[in-house]
Amino acid sequence: MTLSIIPVAGVPEVTEGADLAVLIGEALAAGPGAEAGDVVVVASKVVSKAAGRRAPADPVPGPEAERLARETEMPAPQVQLVLDESSEVLLAAPKVLVVETRHGFVCANAGIDRSNAGPAGGALLLPEDPDAAAASLRGALEGRFGVRLAVLVSDTFGRPFRDGLVNVALGVAGIDAIRDYRGEVDPDGFRLRGTEIAIADELCSAAELVMEKLAKVPVAVVRGYAYPPATGSGRTLLRDPATDYFRPGRA
Amino acid sequence: MTLSIIPVAGVPEVTEGADLAVLIGEALAAGPGAEAGDVVVVASKVVSKAAGRRAPADPVPGPEAERLARETEMPAPQVQLVLDESSEVLLAAPKVLVVETRHGFVCANAGIDRSNAGPAGGALLLPEDPDAAAASLRGALEGRFGVRLAVLVSDTFGRPFRDGLVNVALGVAGIDAIRDYRGEVDPDGFRLRGTEIAIADELCSAAELVMEKLAKVPVAVVRGYAYPPATGSGRTLLRDPATDYFRPGRA
Repeated sequence: MTLSIIPVAGVPEVTEGADLAVLIGEALAAGPGAEAGDVVVVASKVVSKAAGRRAPADPVPGPEAERLARETEMPAPQVQLVLDESSEVLLAAPKVLVVETRHGFVCANAGIDRSNAGPAGGALLLPEDPDAAAASLRGALEGRFGVRLAVLVSDTFGRPFRDGLVNVALGVAGIDAIRDYRGEVDPDGFRLRGTEIAIADELCSAAELVMEKLAKVPVAVVRGYAYPPATGSGRTLLRDPATDYFRPGRA
Repeated sequence: MTLSIIPVAGVPEVTEGADLAVLIGEALAAGPGAEAGDVVVVASKVVSKAAGRRAPADPVPGPEAERLARETEMPAPQVQLVLDESSEVLLAAPKVLVVETRHGFVCANAGIDRSNAGPAGGALLLPEDPDAAAASLRGALEGRFGVRLAVLVSDTFGRPFRDGLVNVALGVAGIDAIRDYRGEVDPDGFRLRGTEIAIADELCSAAELVMEKLAKVPVAVVRGYAYPPATGSGRTLLRDPATDYFRPGRA
């Protein structure tokens, strides 16, 4: 089955308090519409904008922020912002703190980003609850279009070992984040092992290819992907820290 | 621009010595054809099969393999196979060795895989030189179809922090593996920082969504993705070990 990855143009600048489901619904209606099974991928940035998830202008750095600011050569207020969003600092290196966010995501600088923050500028935080945002958008869009949909809230993360960033799924609704081939048998009768595919991340990476950062396309539709209906959650994609061997101190 | 991710059916079982470019060319000709700019994504497994990259049946484990076999509870000959393909062992954990392969890829068990190995069974090694394989396929397919193409040789890797596997690019030809937005300016005049997107990995992840492991679809075409012509190399995607902070011992 051929997939289509469709950019959704026409989402206006999202401001705090905007009804994102209405804005995305309008853009879908004016564009590709919504068909049963469509996976709607939404940049976390617009979710944060609608929810007013902006960083406070000038947080007062505490002693840990001051210490990490010296270690990373980052401004101490910026470090304090990262700490406020984090449950654990995994690594401090020049210009970067790799943390576990309060949601459990491991990423640089708690995903706080100053680019594409809108005319108001400032820094955007990750959505408070990406799964809830995905579920809410899914409910509203399913109601509007009368078809079953999946919604993924996506952001752009770095990763160890490999250069360059890729889009991953933070919030997931309507689809299992991981497709599990374990126990299935290949065409030669060999039982497949260890092949749990992070399809939600792959769908977000596919969508990134049409979500042009410079052209303000914060939504894309993946059409034609077959999957069983499911509640889904982005938390499925978080490794158990106990077997997450590359966490510092655990190797 | 809407992308199409097209599975390419009809590639027969690939045997050692087969001319993979001819087999893929026939399958393309019988299917979606090839259009200028198409990105042809090929599972590394069929590249390995054509090149006869099969593991020796019973390598004799040396002392390091014996030690790591005890540590990982893996069979010592299997550990020796992994060591033979690796330049460094990064981590030994129950049932897994994470290594840097002789190519520089960081992955579990040097990418050696016993599933979908074909009727002969046994274990397949990663291709000897994935970039060269991609370039060779690109040259042959461009010659056959008379259009400019890109070719990616892809495999399925795990990653720290996030559960589930995703497809990444090992070999790259005809496209830059990373798209660099640094220095460009967002719609509000904010200069984008640190946004180098690993598009070759994202293209491979997109292709994985149609490359069904159980249905023998080892090739997919991504059609409609705009990119400047380039030589390209999968090595661009390998982090410099000196700043690869999550390598054990470097944190």
